[in-house]
This record gives sequence, C-alpha cells and structure tokens, in this order.
Amino acid sequence: MELDGERLRTDIETTGEFGALEDEEHGRTVLTGTEANRRAREYFVERLEDAGLDVRVDAVGNIAGRWTPESADPDAAAVAAGSHLDSVPEGGIFDGPLGVYSALEAVRAMQDAGIEPTRPVEVVSFTEEEGQRFASGLLGSSVAVGERSVADALALTDGRTTLADALESMGFRGEGRLDASEWDSWLELHVEQSKRLERADVPVGLVTTITGITHCDVTVRGEANHAGATPMDERTDALAAASEFVRDVERGATEIGETTVGTVGKLDARPNATNVVPGTVEMSVDIRDVSYDAMNELVSRAEESLSRLEAERGVETTLSRGFDLQPTEMSERCRRAVAEAGENAGIETLDLHSGAAHDTMYVAGVTDAAMLFAPSRDGISHNPGEWTAWEDCATATRALAGGLASLAR
Amino acid sequence: MELDGERLRTDIETTGEFGALEDEEHGRTVLTGTEANRRAREYFVERLEDAGLDVRVDAVGNIAGRWTPESADPDAAAVAAGSHLDSVPEGGIFDGPLGVYSALEAVRAMQDAGIEPTRPVEVVSFTEEEGQRFASGLLGSSVAVGERSVADALALTDGRTTLADALESMGFRGEGRLDASEWDSWLELHVEQSKRLERADVPVGLVTTITGITHCDVTVRGEANHAGATPMDERTDALAAASEFVRDVERGATEIGETTVGTVGKLDARPNATNVVPGTVEMSVDIRDVSYDAMNELVSRAEESLSRLEAERGVETTLSRGFDLQPTEMSERCRRAVAEAGENAGIETLDLHSGAAHDTMYVAGVTDAAMLFAPSRDGISHNPGEWTAWEDCATATRALAGGLASLAR
Repeated sequence: MELDGERLRTDIETTGEFGALEDEEHGRTVLTGTEANRRAREYFVERLEDAGLDVRVDAVGNIAGRWTPESADPDAAAVAAGSHLDSVPEGGIFDGPLGVYSALEAVRAMQDAGIEPTRPVEVVSFTEEEGQRFASGLLGSSVAVGERSVADALALTDGRTTLADALESMGFRGEGRLDASEWDSWLELHVEQSKRLERADVPVGLVTTITGITHCDVTVRGEANHAGATPMDERTDALAAASEFVRDVERGATEIGETTVGTVGKLDARPNATNVVPGTVEMSVDIRDVSYDAMNELVSRAEESLSRLEAERGVETTLSRGFDLQPTEMSERCRRAVAEAGENAGIETLDLHSGAAHDTMYVAGVTDAAMLFAPSRDGISHNPGEWTAWEDCATATRALAGGLASLAR
Repeated sequence: MELDGERLRTDIETTGEFGALEDEEHGRTVLTGTEANRRAREYFVERLEDAGLDVRVDAVGNIAGRWTPESADPDAAAVAAGSHLDSVPEGGIFDGPLGVYSALEAVRAMQDAGIEPTRPVEVVSFTEEEGQRFASGLLGSSVAVGERSVADALALTDGRTTLADALESMGFRGEGRLDASEWDSWLELHVEQSKRLERADVPVGLVTTITGITHCDVTVRGEANHAGATPMDERTDALAAASEFVRDVERGATEIGETTVGTVGKLDARPNATNVVPGTVEMSVDIRDVSYDAMNELVSRAEESLSRLEAERGVETTLSRGFDLQPTEMSERCRRAVAEAGENAGIETLDLHSGAAHDTMYVAGVTDAAMLFAPSRDGISHNPGEWTAWEDCATATRALAGGLASLAR
C-alpha cells in the first residue's frame, strides 16, 4: 500500500501553524479552548470531510471521523486510530498531530489502494491529552473509556472557565460520548520522546507496555534557624535531609531495574532565604516502570530513606502516594498486526516500552490496543526542538496503515 | 551601681507594642518608615529627653542621645552604646530594643548613682539594621562609618519609595551624619540568638569575634527531560547534582572547624514540575567563620564539589562569590572593661563569637568596639518566640553599664 508522504507532511505542518511560536522555526502552544485549538480542530474536521469520513464531535470535544466503505458491515465494531491535537506550552509540532494525521493518511491510503475492509475505520482526536489547562492529562480518553463522567469533565475549570464553556466558545461542544469500548481495536502512532529508535537506527517502535506511574508528595520538616548563629551540630536542616532523599530516589531507581525511573522533579524549600537554615522542604516524586512490583519497590525505598532521615537527622517526614496507575500491557493481537504489516512492507520494528503516558493507556483498558513510535531526534519532546524526519513519519505511517488494514480486514 | 529593671522592662515592652502581632503574646513587625517605626522612634526620643539627653537625628535617621554631665569634657570623644529599633517581619521584641534601652538604662543608672564620667556618653539607635526594606542590612551603621554615603543611602528604594521619602514621612530625616569614628569606644548588647549561654547557664556573653560572611551564588545546569521517557543513565539531572552539592557544603562546614557554618538556604529548581527531570538549579550559599582562612577553605571545597559534579555528572556549573565580609575582632580594651565590670559586680561572663552580623561589625572598623550577649531562650530569634528573661536583661544591662562607666571614667 502506497501513501502520500507529502499530504501527511502538509497536514502536520499546517497544524503546526496554529499557535506557532514566533521566535522558533517550529513549535506551538495549543491549549484546549484557545483560538489555536479551534483552528486545529476545524482544519482536522475539514480534512476528515475531504476524505469522505462521517464526522462526530462528542460532549467533551473528542472528534471522530468514520470511514464505512461499501465493503464494511456498518454495524461491525470499528477499528480506530488517532491521538490528540493539543500541545504543552511551547511544545513541538509532532506530539499528537503525527498520530492524528497518520491515522487519516492511513485511511486515505487504504482508499487510494482500493482496500476493502470489513469493518469501519475511525480516525480520532482526543481532547486535552496534555492536561495543561483543565485536567492533569488524558482528559478526552478518560471520558471515552468511562473513567470520568461527561458531567465531571465538563465541570472542570482552569480557575476561570469551565471546559463546557471553553468547548462551547470554540463550537466544539458536541453531544453524546465517544465510547472506546465499542471499538474492535485501537492503534496510536506517537513520537518516541526517547533515543532508543535513533540509537538502534530502526524507524518504527512497537510498544510492549506503557509504564505505570506513581506520584508521591513528600514533606521533610526540620527547624528554620539563623544560618550564622546555629552551629552545624545543632541544626535540623530540611534541605540537607531532602538532598539525601533526592539521591536515594536516584540510586534506588538505578539499582532496581533498567526500566525503572524515579525523579524528584519538584522541590520547594521554605523559607528559601540565603541566611536561614531551611525549615521545610516539599517534593514531588515521579516513579515509573513496566513492572508494578518494581514501582512498589522504589516507593518502599523512598519510605525507607525517609525513616532513616528521621532517625539520623531528627526531621519529621510524610509521604503520600497520590496519583497511581499500574502498567498497561499492549494487546498481542494488535502488536502482531502491526509487526506483520511492517515485515510485509520491509519495515524493521523494535519492541520497546513507553515511559510516557498516552491516551492508549486508557483505551487499552476497554479494548485491544497498541502503540507505534516514530524516532525523536535526540529524544527531544515537549520542546520546539522536537523533530521527526518526514521520511520516518511516512515509514511509521505505512506500518500503521498496514496494521489498521489487517485489523479491519 | 544599681539599675531599674522595671524601667528597662517597661521601655522594651512598650516598644514591643508598636507593630505588635495580633495573634501572638509577643512579637512585632517594624520595618523602616512604617507607622510602627515612627512610634518606636518617637517613644525613644521621649525617653532620651526624659533622661536629659541631647537628641540628634542624622540625615539617614540614625538617632543619638548625648549625656554630657558636668564632670565630662564636652569636647572629649564620647563613649557610645546602642543597637536598633527595627525588626524583621514577625520578629521578636528583644532583638534591637534590648541594646537600645539597656544603653539608655545604663545612662540613667549612672545618673542615679551619681557617677561622674569624664567623657560624654551617647545612646544610639541605627536605622534599618535588619535590612528588610531598603538595604540588605546594617544600613544606618554603614553610613555612620563612611562605608556608604548619605546620598547613596537616601536614594535606596523598596521599589516604590526612597529611604529619603520614608524618613521624611516619619519626620525622622535629620541633618548631617552621625560619625562613629568620633567615638572613643562603642558597646552593643544584643540577644545571643544561639544556645551557648543558656547551656552554660551564664548570664552574659562577651563577643570575641563577629564571624565573616560570604554569600556564593551557585548555578547547576543539566538537561530538562521527560521524567518517564528518559532512562536513568541518560539523564543530566540538575537537582540530583545539586543535592550532592548541598551535602558537600554541609560536610565541609562540619569538617573544617567548630566555628565554621555553611548553609544552602535557598534552592530553586527549574522547571520544577513533577514529571520533568530538573534542568537547572540555582542556589545561594551562606558561609561564616571567625577565621577567614576557614571561610576560604569552605569556598574551595564548594568549588571542588562543583568540579567533581561537572566531571562525574556532565552538568555545567558556576559559582560567584558576591557578598564578602571578613571576620571582625572585638577590641581588647572594650572587652576588658566589660569583663572587669562584670567581675566587680559578681556577674559571670562567657567568651563566645557572634555568628550573626550586627551594626558593631561596621563600628569596629572605625573605633574600639565590643558586644555583649544576653541569653536567648532555646536560641530562638527573628521569631515571635524570641525571649530573654527580664532578670537576664537586667543582669546584662548591669554589665553594660559597668563597662560604659569604666570606658567613660
């Protein structure tokens, strides 16, 4: 099956113009409900209609275009693919749009090649995957799998506006709920955001597992004191204690396993003044692995570190495990469909895991799902420097199209 | 020589009412140029006048009351004592006022006892010792020793108002410049802000040296990255590196000497988001010791730590040594005067150093100067919990009065 790499490129580049950064060659800021988001959505709907797809917008702004060729049973469960159109502030042009437009290009390629699937094929864009305005992420997909109700989602606010009003103002507050559990299967192509494909010089990654994620909020309480008048042996320095904790998390993640990552990404010291021994430190820890046991092991090590610091340094500590998602295995059937399509097309694939969260995490809970990765130059993402060679975009899209065609056969 | 502890207590308690905190038994906020500052100053001037002192306010708001008894040569260099009336936000009632009103009480006690000094005695309050609004601290004394010009001081702003206007609005912008170099000698009584007197159960500390202070600004640059998609061995985590630095400063200060202190009091990580590996960390380090060599040794260790982190972790680092004051030795003559006065009165004194900066640091550069400390309960200061027993205030004031009488004899 041939596809039109220029058509794909045009769609991604055009989408990259909405909310484009002024001082960067590429890069965009597209938050849910903004003018940039409206234009990205309207362009997408136009492209879906140009390809003859039936467009539907649900109550939380998820957009789906459905291709029901004559060969297909309109009542058969659809095969779906897609991603998202929003971005982080000052993000890249591939994270999201590549998945949306590769899915559309796959349908157009199937149409051009005269392929006759027995199932409808849907091209999907989920609302606010990045979680930069209303939610903490995966907003549209959480509703599409029933993890969050439409009413709860619409009531989300950015402190001033509700999601309902933001969607209404863009003209993208539709009706009903896109139900991912009705799909036969789901594929998402995304940029890797890591360097494994680039290093292996392989154009397509096949995700085996999306890592689980745990966020822990940690507090270390010592005693704020005069930095000059308090001898070293009379201090209970919360930052010195927290510094040991940061290193313990790093060491633990390094020791537990190759796929384990642990990050203290956020640290706030108080009173945070040059001449005062820090009295309190608050930290957030991000822990991920393909193994939930390994994640639990790292949480245990973090707790042990705090216990040791309480005993050795006299600080008081708390750790609360707030956000917690277990690892998500990708469907064997969907992975095989893509891998075989790749083999048939002479495209090499590499099995790897995803350390980043994606809408597919939710979708995989209600239907068979898999993810493809395209190489990220230098692993950079969420940054105007995010880049995937157009040739790599096309190659990954061919694998996606082959997989979709196979699943919809 | 007898003194009136109740009169001293009344002056300190009354001063503690200006800018008093609502929800605390004691505690005050008195920033330069505020209504609370104006009332504290006016009350002080009244007390000086009540004692028959000649009051003078200089161009930067320093206040001096001069006692020239008949026994004194009006042209002889005066013996001076005092401290400051301003406070940190939500500070205590003793830090500053104890030094001001103990000096005044010493004069009143000399008057009551019929002591006949040959030198005039001055009671002084310096403007903005705490440096919470216009300067970084020691504002009035820096002008009184010629370290900063009157014009530069008056032009200082808090971002909206100049010191000149703030003084003017209080009615405390006087003329001329209080010149500390004209004094024969200087004594300052202050709360210890540490636990050494309390532990030794000694009522008066005699400062040997005020530590030097160095502030270093440190930057650690790594690479911000996705906390999920970046394996541990591909990170350049600025916070993990900075955490080693914090520990190295702590270890260095502990190892170098008993009087060495090193504090990373301020740390800001960027982007400071839970799911992003920190890309940059900025820190401020406060280093103090009675030995300048030891201070330099700790700065060297900090630099070595950064070099090691560059080599081992691939971060880029900078260290700039901004603020730098060498240790200040107290005058042997002044210390002896106080120690002997204590002995004669049966008051035990303890030699100790000051880890905190005081106006005496500047004054000691232009004339003979010494400091006395009164015990701080639990070492607490810059806090509504700051407390010195009234009996201890009186005892330290007796030592001060004896010292002043001896120096002015």
